[in-house]
Amino acid sequence: MPHAEKTAITPTREQDFPEWYQQIVRVAELAEPRDVRGCMVIRPWGFGIWENMQRQLDAMFRATGHRNAYFPLFIPLSHMQKEAEHVEGFAKECAVVTHHRLELGADGKMRPAPAAELSEPLVIRPTSETIIGATYAKWVQSYRDLPVLINQWCNVVRWEMRPRLFLRTTEFLWQEGHTVHETEAEAREETRRMLDVYETFVRDRLAIPVFSGEKSESERFPGAVQTLSIEAMVQDRKAIQAGTSHFLGQNFSRASGIQFQTRDGKQEFGWTTSWGMSTRLVGTLVMTHGDDDGLVLPPRIAPTHVVIIPITPKEESRAAVLEMCTKLAAQLRRGSYGDGPIEVEIDQRDLGGGVKSWEWIKKGVPLRVEIGPRDLESGKVAVSRRDQPVKAKEVFATEGFVDRASEILNSIQRNLFQRAMQFRDTNTRVIDTREEFYDFFTPKNASKPEIHGGFALAYWNGSRAIEDEIKADLKVTIRCIPLADPAHPSEPGKCIFTGEP
Amino acid sequence: MPHAEKTAITPTREQDFPEWYQQIVRVAELAEPRDVRGCMVIRPWGFGIWENMQRQLDAMFRATGHRNAYFPLFIPLSHMQKEAEHVEGFAKECAVVTHHRLELGADGKMRPAPAAELSEPLVIRPTSETIIGATYAKWVQSYRDLPVLINQWCNVVRWEMRPRLFLRTTEFLWQEGHTVHETEAEAREETRRMLDVYETFVRDRLAIPVFSGEKSESERFPGAVQTLSIEAMVQDRKAIQAGTSHFLGQNFSRASGIQFQTRDGKQEFGWTTSWGMSTRLVGTLVMTHGDDDGLVLPPRIAPTHVVIIPITPKEESRAAVLEMCTKLAAQLRRGSYGDGPIEVEIDQRDLGGGVKSWEWIKKGVPLRVEIGPRDLESGKVAVSRRDQPVKAKEVFATEGFVDRASEILNSIQRNLFQRAMQFRDTNTRVIDTREEFYDFFTPKNASKPEIHGGFALAYWNGSRAIEDEIKADLKVTIRCIPLADPAHPSEPGKCIFTGEP
Repeated sequence: MPHAEKTAITPTREQDFPEWYQQIVRVAELAEPRDVRGCMVIRPWGFGIWENMQRQLDAMFRATGHRNAYFPLFIPLSHMQKEAEHVEGFAKECAVVTHHRLELGADGKMRPAPAAELSEPLVIRPTSETIIGATYAKWVQSYRDLPVLINQWCNVVRWEMRPRLFLRTTEFLWQEGHTVHETEAEAREETRRMLDVYETFVRDRLAIPVFSGEKSESERFPGAVQTLSIEAMVQDRKAIQAGTSHFLGQNFSRASGIQFQTRDGKQEFGWTTSWGMSTRLVGTLVMTHGDDDGLVLPPRIAPTHVVIIPITPKEESRAAVLEMCTKLAAQLRRGSYGDGPIEVEIDQRDLGGGVKSWEWIKKGVPLRVEIGPRDLESGKVAVSRRDQPVKAKEVFATEGFVDRASEILNSIQRNLFQRAMQFRDTNTRVIDTREEFYDFFTPKNASKPEIHGGFALAYWNGSRAIEDEIKADLKVTIRCIPLADPAHPSEPGKCIFTGEP
Repeated sequence: MPHAEKTAITPTREQDFPEWYQQIVRVAELAEPRDVRGCMVIRPWGFGIWENMQRQLDAMFRATGHRNAYFPLFIPLSHMQKEAEHVEGFAKECAVVTHHRLELGADGKMRPAPAAELSEPLVIRPTSETIIGATYAKWVQSYRDLPVLINQWCNVVRWEMRPRLFLRTTEFLWQEGHTVHETEAEAREETRRMLDVYETFVRDRLAIPVFSGEKSESERFPGAVQTLSIEAMVQDRKAIQAGTSHFLGQNFSRASGIQFQTRDGKQEFGWTTSWGMSTRLVGTLVMTHGDDDGLVLPPRIAPTHVVIIPITPKEESRAAVLEMCTKLAAQLRRGSYGDGPIEVEIDQRDLGGGVKSWEWIKKGVPLRVEIGPRDLESGKVAVSRRDQPVKAKEVFATEGFVDRASEILNSIQRNLFQRAMQFRDTNTRVIDTREEFYDFFTPKNASKPEIHGGFALAYWNGSRAIEDEIKADLKVTIRCIPLADPAHPSEPGKCIFTGEP
């Protein structure tokens, strides 16, 4: 599909989606790989997005009664082994600490000191169920100690052979909630509540529509009874798991010994849950909203809402232009948007206006305002919205723009959500037969085997054999079994592969 | 010194300061050790204090132009070695990752998979100069790219043989600022600026007075040209280093290759700084303000400012009492204190009022309000301040208390600072002779060898030999050489040990 206009990003999404993604992450200065295999540096602009995610999600966790705490980075190997499925699920990707000192070797180079080998190796947490479980076992004695509602923001490590910035990295940042409840019903309710928190957050703040549902057995968290997830469709029509919430039953409390005295004086194991969301979400955001000119940020999550670019071709009007910029910035900052003030940056760097403008386009800032000598007299400003074509500008009287800035940001936020929703709906189909299913997932263009149908909504008998078969034939995975929507209850149906219920 | 009153904490500070500290950390539910040697779990109350420190300090970093980013946990061994003094300084306490997979051994137990041994071991960051330096070397090309002003909040690991919660732990949380500048003068200015930020933060938010100064050569950060620190005196009259700021000269930029084109077209190495503050500060806070009944929190850093304890002896008045508590909480929360609302908690747990009250005393909440059936009629509330004796109460008309809450919190904050200042001044002496110095630092009570004089302000010739001698004789260390105070310029003097200048 040839483009009439030149785009800032090469290749385009259409030409090579995975490479387009790498380019966006690079040119928007979100992150870059470091020499340690699979590790990344999150640059200030990318980290600013993550900080906004953290702050907003954290407020939602607090509002649902959770408090933050911090647990150790290291998990003794013996702890990991307590839950058999769990250790098996993570064994292949564990980074292991075996020494606690370096020394100078005979070759003049530093090496791990043989005398400082640990008697028990330490695993760097890939997730913290086991170490937190051991702690909760001490805290929980009676039903009066329940529920325990704790969250942790931290780094985790899962060794990654095929890393991709944000989406799959050896070290990543995340939050992990860990709760203990008195009854199964309460724990199941918590599992669902936190999935809803994720869905709300992703929809209202990141402008990403998702399907919520239950994972099939093969995709379940190792050791969980039930795994719920939210699944987003990004612009290559593939799914990204954007958050998961696990009902762990009594598996981990049995393994860790989280026992309590019930209201009628008996001993019972606690019912636990865990739920997490990670820096992968930054990658999901890029893939959902980015276009061929760069990143496009939903205003609710953008570190900067408005960038003001002074255009100062002549030295004599320079001071006056900068003064107008400063004044506008101050006025805008007095306005509020979302849960804080409008965030404004004046780009005073010693570079041409065009160069600066393109940098901010690539970084995805929602609104750009250029102010030059002519605007001084007219008292007007030209405003560009990132959700519109890059050359589009709307001219406002300065005061009028200040008054409307928050409303314009809201309109961008809505527009991005609607676009994403439309894309997803266009590429999601209800499928009734095996033939239709295979056709939907067979790439139409042999040169781009990664572009296939999208999401299929289909009945399935729940068997692992079918799941393995479609994965082998089509590289298609069952993402989730959608949760019942009270407004549109789903009816029992027949498996499109076997005809079974 | 026998106490007439029974105290909540045994032993008292006077009886056994180190053990008193451990007790406070435990009963105030700040943190607890975990089975991994030297690692701790930071419990929600302790983590709430750390989150407040983070939030407030972070705002000060932003106000001085810094932005946050994130760098990898792992440092390849070859990176660590680039700065010779640096690797030598940290080699003895490095945790080393050598494997990236577990497998089932012949004994049925998991072990690091021999086939998954790393070709180059990875050090878990004890600090990030080297990994960040390697990144900056790519980012910095020209003087236009300078200054680089970045901070990182993260966990670091320094293997600890004699751990103490918060004060010395194998893993701890901290922030590390890393900046690059065009000139030596700018870098030195930054080093000093960030020390001032720390001093202001610790004084105004934690109510801790400190001495600011330069570290002697032996206490300098490995690889630094100059290390500045702020030193607090805690209640055993010893010093705790509460924050450090390092001028690194061109040492690390030479090692990492951070080079830039100057304004006149030459190539020069960047001038770098780094500065950090850690969870050790929570321990410093405990040791500065705690008393024999528990923790005492300066309001500016307390996760909760006011706790309301409903006293409901009779079932019939229960609902009305709870309603009055809820109403008071809502009124208080509308008020502001520091940079946010007044934080209020209603303790509705099914426990006796006395038990609850003592828990909050031990946790150090600034204000406690008990509300019982009699208060319903009178419209009055009895308020206890944590900086007053535990039994002291002041009775307010409810409205009057709401109006004055913020002012009372300010008064507690001031009072705690003045107390700490008085303690420090009482135990700091200007010393002119070697005899006086030895006398000052010789414990007066043989059964409590840890209680000695306090801080000595004395002239010293700067020699390492003297430093080693007083350390060997008295276990006394030179904490810092105070920075010149423009109001009280220090005059040259003669070393009290040698008579040299």
